[in-house]
Amino acid sequence: MSRETDDLAELKDSALLDTDEDLEDLALGEDYALNPEFVSDVIDALDRGDAERLRELLGALHPADVADLMGFLSADAREELVPHLDPETLAEILSELDTEIREEVLEHVPSATLAKAIGEMESDDAADVVDDLEADKRAQVLAAMPEVERATIEASLAYKDETAGRLMQREVVAAPQFWTVGQAIDHFRREVDDLPELFFDIYVVDPSYKPVGAVPVSQLLRSKRDVPLAQIMEQVTEIPVDMDQEEVAYIFDKYHLISAPVVEPGGRLVGQITVDDIVGVIQEEGEEDILALAGVSDAGRDADVLGMVRSRLPWLLLNTVTAAIAASVIGAFEGEIEKLAILAALMPVVASLGGNAGTQTLAVAVRALASRELSAINAIRTVSREMVVGLANGAALAALTGGVIYALFGDLRLTLAFGAALMINMFVAALAGAAIPLALDRMGRDPAVSSVVFVTFVTDFTGFFAFLGLAALILL
Amino acid sequence: MSRETDDLAELKDSALLDTDEDLEDLALGEDYALNPEFVSDVIDALDRGDAERLRELLGALHPADVADLMGFLSADAREELVPHLDPETLAEILSELDTEIREEVLEHVPSATLAKAIGEMESDDAADVVDDLEADKRAQVLAAMPEVERATIEASLAYKDETAGRLMQREVVAAPQFWTVGQAIDHFRREVDDLPELFFDIYVVDPSYKPVGAVPVSQLLRSKRDVPLAQIMEQVTEIPVDMDQEEVAYIFDKYHLISAPVVEPGGRLVGQITVDDIVGVIQEEGEEDILALAGVSDAGRDADVLGMVRSRLPWLLLNTVTAAIAASVIGAFEGEIEKLAILAALMPVVASLGGNAGTQTLAVAVRALASRELSAINAIRTVSREMVVGLANGAALAALTGGVIYALFGDLRLTLAFGAALMINMFVAALAGAAIPLALDRMGRDPAVSSVVFVTFVTDFTGFFAFLGLAALILL
Repeated sequence: MSRETDDLAELKDSALLDTDEDLEDLALGEDYALNPEFVSDVIDALDRGDAERLRELLGALHPADVADLMGFLSADAREELVPHLDPETLAEILSELDTEIREEVLEHVPSATLAKAIGEMESDDAADVVDDLEADKRAQVLAAMPEVERATIEASLAYKDETAGRLMQREVVAAPQFWTVGQAIDHFRREVDDLPELFFDIYVVDPSYKPVGAVPVSQLLRSKRDVPLAQIMEQVTEIPVDMDQEEVAYIFDKYHLISAPVVEPGGRLVGQITVDDIVGVIQEEGEEDILALAGVSDAGRDADVLGMVRSRLPWLLLNTVTAAIAASVIGAFEGEIEKLAILAALMPVVASLGGNAGTQTLAVAVRALASRELSAINAIRTVSREMVVGLANGAALAALTGGVIYALFGDLRLTLAFGAALMINMFVAALAGAAIPLALDRMGRDPAVSSVVFVTFVTDFTGFFAFLGLAALILL
Repeated sequence: MSRETDDLAELKDSALLDTDEDLEDLALGEDYALNPEFVSDVIDALDRGDAERLRELLGALHPADVADLMGFLSADAREELVPHLDPETLAEILSELDTEIREEVLEHVPSATLAKAIGEMESDDAADVVDDLEADKRAQVLAAMPEVERATIEASLAYKDETAGRLMQREVVAAPQFWTVGQAIDHFRREVDDLPELFFDIYVVDPSYKPVGAVPVSQLLRSKRDVPLAQIMEQVTEIPVDMDQEEVAYIFDKYHLISAPVVEPGGRLVGQITVDDIVGVIQEEGEEDILALAGVSDAGRDADVLGMVRSRLPWLLLNTVTAAIAASVIGAFEGEIEKLAILAALMPVVASLGGNAGTQTLAVAVRALASRELSAINAIRTVSREMVVGLANGAALAALTGGVIYALFGDLRLTLAFGAALMINMFVAALAGAAIPLALDRMGRDPAVSSVVFVTFVTDFTGFFAFLGLAALILL
């Protein structure tokens, strides 16, 4: 190429760069979320079938933003968009998409394109995508892949979902104990193609390929060439291949790990987990806790209407049963309510405040259990403290509401029944809110799932029974 | 040292190592949480004042585990433990402690020791600790520190809490554009003392110290010495120094960043944020959302009884007001309830199911807003979909419960009033559960805070009013 065309090409490149940057500014708002106008532009281009404009628009986006864009499009628009994505872009986007959308997108990608895209992905992401494929398509895609890649993916899929084995990438950088810094650097420069695209630690392994230490890459860089790796290596925290991903996330968070070696039962190094995978897991687990506490099962994310109904109805049905039992308590006091209908107006207040106090305690307990700040060591102390808080809040609220009720109705016995019932319910709420998640956790179950149903059932039941019972005793 | 003593020292070292490993096994359970027996051992040693045993026990722990241990100890035991920690250990533990406990521990550390410990910390952690000190002690500690360190910390503290400026460390590795890989590596080897302990990216800067790209350390390692940095550098995502930490976490998660340069308004590089800091932020923000949805204010973490009451009572008071308003609706129908007391038993069921359905929608919306999956782009579609789901769930529940009520009471009009009220409430619950967090977000407020109060108020009010109103119309 002559000097002149070179310059021209450069000029064109820089012009393109400018356009790209302008488009980028158009695409993302200040908060790094997609602008509605940009999404409209994409939809317009799709409607017009303007492939050129689409390429331009999508080219301005990071794969993560393309994934976000997919989330904002209707199912039809997504289907139209898929053919405009080349295998490399597809490879980068697929691991960013939410499961529901990904499954849908995968249906519209030809097997050959998919096999190529999956070949470009890291082993953990590739396995996730293959796992989402339907049996027929999975067979086709795997058949279209080179033997080695297929074997790697099948090995990943052999590990259970949400374990370290599925989270890890098999690409690692390992070095024998006896190497020096210089030997290691020279080796990596020679074998560039075998290295993962990005890595943070070099695992030092013994002859049986068991990790004995790790050297952060920055440490390698600052050390002299003749220093043995064994001298600068740090202790490693090994992750067993079958460890639950929540546990893995806990360890990464606690020890501020950037990467960790994953080992087989015998101790052999089989892969590594890096912190960027963990960030996703932590987000996910936090979301799961929020949704579980609100009574939405996992499937509730990004589902269609039917999926949303399915993820919420079961808990509402359970809640119907508990509400019916609580209602039967009220039914037992029908006679009292007929005589004094104000009881019917006041009883939900007792139940509601108890429910809220119970939920507060529950949320604190679930959070503390997740971060292991609450365990067998301080369970009794925590529950006792909660009960004291429940009594204190109950006393404060009883004094306040009691005052209002006495002012409104001038009935000391009604006031007493209400105040006493409220204190009882606040105390029971604290006990239930702390003890129920602890018990679920001790039983090896997720303390966030279903605990709200139990707690509000206890507080509704107690609230109605204590207030109506006391009212029956004192008033009538 | 003679050969013999050398060997002896080695032997002793390895013996010590064995003991340490045994203690480590004793200290941590399989789930990497502290064993109750180990905590008891520490408490025993504290009671006996056995400094030797304490050193041994604490020596077996990672600083993060010492921090966990502190959380499990009583305030008195913590106070006794503090003098047994040397400045280096203290430096590592302080950044791991929860705020409440840290403030308490800091009170018991002499200013001189503290100044030394803070000097060992990274600038972001150091600033956090200094920020927790009371005015008097802060002045003492800062006075006891070298000028440069003091200036760095004061500069960090000038940034607002929970912003990128406070999260960042000022220690960065930067290189001019015209350097080659070899020049960079040689420079780092020479200036080892100026490098941060651990780093993942080298920021390539222009003459005005603005970042123009980043070279991952592993990329540096795999490239030939004569390659210019400008050729292998990647695009960087710059973090403005005043960006909110939640936003920073969103960007790290979205783009899978390991580190990112922090820039001043003019664009000058002033520090970097690394992903390990972000893991903590994500945990924190997730926790805050869970607690906010349950009506517990921030201060609720690790507080004493008084702090716990303070973090929960305000919301309960607000809830008392909303419950009283809902109760006044019931009060308005006293006549109807006196005539038909069964209404009193059934109305909480309508309110409770609406409240739960509203909370489900709310949790999904809050989560989607946090991950930016829900925005102005798809707000209308999302709310409409929620309303359809609300109607569908309402119809399913109305059919089921209506059947039960008809079977129990044989009253078609009562059944109709209940079913219709339930459907209305489920529809309103979906609308409120989706629209309220969206509105709060649009107003620039945290959609997790206070939205549950609003939603349950709406569903209680609607539940009582719709059921009793319809009953009054149809039945009486």
